[in-house]
Amino acid sequence: MTVRLARISTEPLSVPAHTAAVDDARMGAEITFVGRVRDHDPDAATGVVALEYSAHPDAEAALHALAVAAIGDTDAIVAVSHRIGRLEVGEAAVVVAVAAPHRQVAYEVSRELIESIKHSLPIWKRQIDADGSAVWKGLGG
Amino acid sequence: MTVRLARISTEPLSVPAHTAAVDDARMGAEITFVGRVRDHDPDAATGVVALEYSAHPDAEAALHALAVAAIGDTDAIVAVSHRIGRLEVGEAAVVVAVAAPHRQVAYEVSRELIESIKHSLPIWKRQIDADGSAVWKGLGG
Repeated sequence: MTVRLARISTEPLSVPAHTAAVDDARMGAEITFVGRVRDHDPDAATGVVALEYSAHPDAEAALHALAVAAIGDTDAIVAVSHRIGRLEVGEAAVVVAVAAPHRQVAYEVSRELIESIKHSLPIWKRQIDADGSAVWKGLGG
Repeated sequence: MTVRLARISTEPLSVPAHTAAVDDARMGAEITFVGRVRDHDPDAATGVVALEYSAHPDAEAALHALAVAAIGDTDAIVAVSHRIGRLEVGEAAVVVAVAAPHRQVAYEVSRELIESIKHSLPIWKRQIDADGSAVWKGLGG
């Protein structure tokens, strides 16, 4: 139905701002996905201390298009943001809030949108490990 | 892995309290499902104004057992509550917060738990419509 918010942000993401954006008395189901920077990576010799995200200039338009595609012909409402810049462990990199009249649609749209973000949003990340090493990671992480 | 919270509550549910309960630096994915009282029911002639939930005395133990079953042998962490008593339109009846290292497990545990709550938690609801009529609704709503 509607994309209420689709933003690439250099500022910390507010989860309540996303859930508030999809608040609607017609919607019985609300699902919020938060993807956070984890403190470890099975491929890293030491712990992860931060991630640095950078985006293509068209990433915000791409994010909006992915949200529209995930909603399809359902009556879901979506608010989604991806943060860029340096994020410490525990910080939210992506927030996807979906509201729908019923839970099945809410889960499906939420899952489809986060998968499409991970697979095709033009955002890249550089992982900074505790030993000072840094490595670029592709999409799909 | 762990059920951090499993409660039947007569008080309004705090979504942030549930997400805080599953906060953990090892967890890259966090999913919060909120089920709210909707303002309409396709079977009702008029709008819905409230729902009254009542629970079997063993419902809290049953909710904990459903959370344990949904987690299974995964490394997910869960905080879940169901509210009882009279709820107005827009109020949260159920909150399920799940954190896991990766999103696939988080989605699967979240979905499994809400489905099992809807299908087998011994909580019943009475729907109060705008025309003053009231009707008991079974599980699965």
